[in-house]
Amino acid sequence: MSDGFGPDNLPYGVFTLARGERRLGVRLGNGVVDLSGLGGLLATGSLNPLMAAGRQEWTAAREAVAAHVASGPPVIPLRDVTLHLPFEVADYTDFYSSEHHALNVSAILRPDSPGLSPQWKHLPIGYHGRSATVVVSGTPIVRPTGQLGAGEFGPTRRLDIEAEVGFVVGTPGRRISTGEFAEHVFGVTLVNDWSARDLQAWEYRPLGPFLAKSFATSVSPWVVPLDALATVPAGRQDPEPLGYLRPAGPAYDLRLTVEWNDTLVSTPPFASMYWTPAQQLAHLTSNGASVRTGDLYASGTVSGPGRDQVGSFLELTRNGTEPVKLADGSLRDFLENGDLVRIGGTARSAAGTQISLGSVSGTIVA
Amino acid sequence: MSDGFGPDNLPYGVFTLARGERRLGVRLGNGVVDLSGLGGLLATGSLNPLMAAGRQEWTAAREAVAAHVASGPPVIPLRDVTLHLPFEVADYTDFYSSEHHALNVSAILRPDSPGLSPQWKHLPIGYHGRSATVVVSGTPIVRPTGQLGAGEFGPTRRLDIEAEVGFVVGTPGRRISTGEFAEHVFGVTLVNDWSARDLQAWEYRPLGPFLAKSFATSVSPWVVPLDALATVPAGRQDPEPLGYLRPAGPAYDLRLTVEWNDTLVSTPPFASMYWTPAQQLAHLTSNGASVRTGDLYASGTVSGPGRDQVGSFLELTRNGTEPVKLADGSLRDFLENGDLVRIGGTARSAAGTQISLGSVSGTIVA
Repeated sequence: MSDGFGPDNLPYGVFTLARGERRLGVRLGNGVVDLSGLGGLLATGSLNPLMAAGRQEWTAAREAVAAHVASGPPVIPLRDVTLHLPFEVADYTDFYSSEHHALNVSAILRPDSPGLSPQWKHLPIGYHGRSATVVVSGTPIVRPTGQLGAGEFGPTRRLDIEAEVGFVVGTPGRRISTGEFAEHVFGVTLVNDWSARDLQAWEYRPLGPFLAKSFATSVSPWVVPLDALATVPAGRQDPEPLGYLRPAGPAYDLRLTVEWNDTLVSTPPFASMYWTPAQQLAHLTSNGASVRTGDLYASGTVSGPGRDQVGSFLELTRNGTEPVKLADGSLRDFLENGDLVRIGGTARSAAGTQISLGSVSGTIVA
Repeated sequence: MSDGFGPDNLPYGVFTLARGERRLGVRLGNGVVDLSGLGGLLATGSLNPLMAAGRQEWTAAREAVAAHVASGPPVIPLRDVTLHLPFEVADYTDFYSSEHHALNVSAILRPDSPGLSPQWKHLPIGYHGRSATVVVSGTPIVRPTGQLGAGEFGPTRRLDIEAEVGFVVGTPGRRISTGEFAEHVFGVTLVNDWSARDLQAWEYRPLGPFLAKSFATSVSPWVVPLDALATVPAGRQDPEPLGYLRPAGPAYDLRLTVEWNDTLVSTPPFASMYWTPAQQLAHLTSNGASVRTGDLYASGTVSGPGRDQVGSFLELTRNGTEPVKLADGSLRDFLENGDLVRIGGTARSAAGTQISLGSVSGTIVA
């Protein structure tokens, strides 16, 4: 199918019909195929039980779903369903694994000492976020308030996005090697880690971002199974990482798009990330910490080398000093109330076709 | 009762008898009173449903429990029960609200630029932690591994404690004013936020601590209801905080003890904290972020002005440069395998008596 939601994709989501209970479905074209009639783990109304069951069950479920889809089932138009958060989030972790993004941010925010922090190429830097405020695409984003500096409280003036790719853990574990990545990670979502840059600048030393990012994190309503995606070789890393981060594991040639209202402003290339998702998971669990079903870890802002490939407006507008012109002629530095941001993505499927990752969108409200 | 677990206390916990299901109980003396026979929210085997029901139900439950206890129910000896995590943790947040601790850490780790960060007295600094690895007192603490510096991976050499007080959210909400604190917070636990200082020093810039603290956070098995505790006036704050952090709300005169093996090494005074728990909750939700039933937020390391009042071994041993001598004559800089740490606490009850907060302990294993 030309829209990227054919039988080579079949991403999972949770939907309701009017006044109905939650059901598991897969997206097909512009509609949803109800899976609840297939029974077992597909009839629970939640993706988490299937995700907890492990890779063998994931493969079996995908085969059963593919056979069902091939049999020509009813397809419920998207306009007739409400989409929900596709899984219940356990812990939410966010990384910082684009070298281009880290260098851009450093140059913009710390011009006196630009460059990567000393450990950046030795480990994938990350931090924990707030799982309570992970919301599904389409949820309005209320402009956060907070301290903008000493003695000043109000709505953020520097509301930004971070275009990211999220990885959803199915099988629990700890000390997960990079080679075990596909045994533990169920699939992929798109993530927008909304950020208030003025709150962040004031609050972040020495314990990192807190309220600047805890008000909302949006995810796409479809979890694309890892099995649907083609892999590509990971990029070269210098210095060579420590043993627990080797081999790097698969990379993915996901191509993101960022639309600000009706204007395509950026096309971040996920293949340009420095650290792979397998390395991120290995690092996250390398101290003995456990991951659970429903854990979401995001890649960090995806920025490529080009100015039109950045994953944040901080970078796009050089911290607001170089506004961008949208299709309607208006200028933007950061987000205004009423603005809509939609992050989309496409991928090469395991079958060699181009498939869609869907999109994650949100409109800013006062 | 002389041990601090009389009818003026009645903290809640979750226990099992041999091969039994989970039950809610309250501690009385050296035993547990089973509450499952009282029905309703007390018969669910989990504290979360009661916590979610709101303050009116909390008061009614406490009255019912007190009446039951007064009727002379069977008391199951502690040795016959297994204690579990007393509530299911939603999001875990940790603050940094002791001025003495922040100044000590700064002087020890950043001697070239000691002092508080610029925003420290304007807002309670905090960060998100890992809720998956919150464990109940008594759980063995496996020494974490990680990067100790560039190119070096191994067991931490600087395993430390952080003696803290945790606040458990019952009623969900957002933008919670300091005056609404007692409507949302159900009770208090003791917290040990185990920390690997070498991992932390290498990883923490610019996004804060991550693996240095995500391997384990221990909590005491008893949640002392807020209703059991006497309040004291909060300390003076200069500069005056912004409006959303005023009034400061209640403070609590909790007195902690830190035992390293059999040696009492410190007595951190919670009353010396700069920011109150009501201000922490107000700040946490001031951007619009929601809290949920089961959210745990910890005070940050409790350190008083005296060298024998610090809540971490980093401070006690000046980052290992001034080892302490334990009762058996041995010296310690940081934790060794086999070491046991027990953090205890007492409080003044609402009835004017002295009550116990129980204790949180853990033994280090390789």
